[in-house]
Amino acid sequence: MGKVLVFGHKNPDTDSITSAIVYAYLKQQLGAEAEAVRLGEVNNETKYVLEKFGFEAPRLISDVSEEASEVILVDHNERQQSADGIENVKILEVIDHHRIANFETADPLYYRAEPVGCTATILNKIFKEKNVEIPSNIAGLMLSAIISDTLLFKSPTCTEEDVQAGKELAEIAGVNLEEYGLAMLKAGADLSDKSLEDLLTLDAKEFTFGTVKSIVAQVNAVDVNDVLNRKGELVSLLNKNVEEKGLNLFFFFVTDILNNDSVAIVAGNAAEDAAKAFGKELVDHQFDLPGVVSRKKQVVPVLTDALS
Amino acid sequence: MGKVLVFGHKNPDTDSITSAIVYAYLKQQLGAEAEAVRLGEVNNETKYVLEKFGFEAPRLISDVSEEASEVILVDHNERQQSADGIENVKILEVIDHHRIANFETADPLYYRAEPVGCTATILNKIFKEKNVEIPSNIAGLMLSAIISDTLLFKSPTCTEEDVQAGKELAEIAGVNLEEYGLAMLKAGADLSDKSLEDLLTLDAKEFTFGTVKSIVAQVNAVDVNDVLNRKGELVSLLNKNVEEKGLNLFFFFVTDILNNDSVAIVAGNAAEDAAKAFGKELVDHQFDLPGVVSRKKQVVPVLTDALS
Repeated sequence: MGKVLVFGHKNPDTDSITSAIVYAYLKQQLGAEAEAVRLGEVNNETKYVLEKFGFEAPRLISDVSEEASEVILVDHNERQQSADGIENVKILEVIDHHRIANFETADPLYYRAEPVGCTATILNKIFKEKNVEIPSNIAGLMLSAIISDTLLFKSPTCTEEDVQAGKELAEIAGVNLEEYGLAMLKAGADLSDKSLEDLLTLDAKEFTFGTVKSIVAQVNAVDVNDVLNRKGELVSLLNKNVEEKGLNLFFFFVTDILNNDSVAIVAGNAAEDAAKAFGKELVDHQFDLPGVVSRKKQVVPVLTDALS
Repeated sequence: MGKVLVFGHKNPDTDSITSAIVYAYLKQQLGAEAEAVRLGEVNNETKYVLEKFGFEAPRLISDVSEEASEVILVDHNERQQSADGIENVKILEVIDHHRIANFETADPLYYRAEPVGCTATILNKIFKEKNVEIPSNIAGLMLSAIISDTLLFKSPTCTEEDVQAGKELAEIAGVNLEEYGLAMLKAGADLSDKSLEDLLTLDAKEFTFGTVKSIVAQVNAVDVNDVLNRKGELVSLLNKNVEEKGLNLFFFFVTDILNNDSVAIVAGNAAEDAAKAFGKELVDHQFDLPGVVSRKKQVVPVLTDALS
């Protein structure tokens, strides 16, 4: 058996990068030859995390079938979110916390999904089940993934298990959870070096709601006005994307990580319907999303119901 | 939250029936309102097991959406093997040891699949993880599922974990593993009350290999001649099925549970190719499968490779 590659989804967030590193570490402790890799650029938040706990970013790969014959997926399962060439390798394991869709294997595998807020929360359990000790710096990565995915426990995706795991891991990592959490989120929400193009692609996922071809993209900000100040340009760019990609909807929303509210800026012929789905009127491509922080729990289900 | 129904696949085997009972028991111990149900008739082997350990067969259901809004699947995931109406209920959990295919959810769920020989082996782990004690009669059911799925540890699907779990469970159940295992398999291999129609449907699964529409059915026997003696009739019946169901292949094989060999009787326009796939010549619809006991590991992959 050759080396097994471990990776999260394309357009990786902190959970996808750190869970690959963490699970590769665990597999190594259990005797497997495993290497964490990544499918895209490391974002500012993740860079802050890796530096804080003394890790390098995993190696970037493109077509996975040119690199290995066996892989482990973390933090995703849907084929369109996974590596190019994924259909030509054997998926040995999946550790994930998303719905299952567009996923199929020829053989039995180890598949561990739980409806919790973060992959790292599941990994924390697996370390215990396997009786492997979690080193301080690995705990730091896991804690960071939980803070990132749950927006410091504020997201409706967050479960009691995530909170519990976060507390345990903060203790092992030796950091103050609240202080470190806020600093990390702020590092991720620092948009000063980002172009508007960057903002639209930083955390963008493709969806099809019925016949409505869509992109739903989210950015976190300490001050949403940093983004809203550039709204004219932003709307032009959204319209350009809609046209070039043949979209019916580009749903972009900026989340205020301090107040846990969001503002949506949308374009495409389904834009008004999208606003209505949230009981809002679309005014100049914009509407408020009070209390909304989670794409998975608070945006995608609403759009699915209204547009499908 | 109403009652959660727990069930295995259509055409249930011992693992599908007992794992539903066992996991419903575990969920009850953890405070959930769970009921085991079944999607088809209980076979002779399973009847022997239920009687031995003092259980009634679970309630038979047809359209699951008329019974509950939330379900847990054990020992399967593919939609065509699951309950009618499955697309209209929420799948909360899956505990399985098969490949994943034709399965999709709208929401995150608990999905636990491991590449072991039997669902009960995974359940044995979950009992430990949840710190729930396994009562003697529940251990008996779990042990029986492992014996059934691994053909008393002889199947190539059997892993070291299955053997270990089997030994632990035999001790808790207070039975002699070898003696009980053979008696149970013999009870299941008693074909004396079965019509030929019964034999073809007892453990039949549908597959499509490329464009080759197929049924692959298996029966266990203490003496394969019990079945081969009726070969003329059997072949007529296979041909009838091929015609009526528009099949390219009906692959029926009888497994000798004492010697761990099988004999295949096949019909359909892909019958010769099926024999060739095993390096055999088809003689009067028949060929030997020495050492073959597992549809999943030794038959389906060979047919997939050769016919797809």
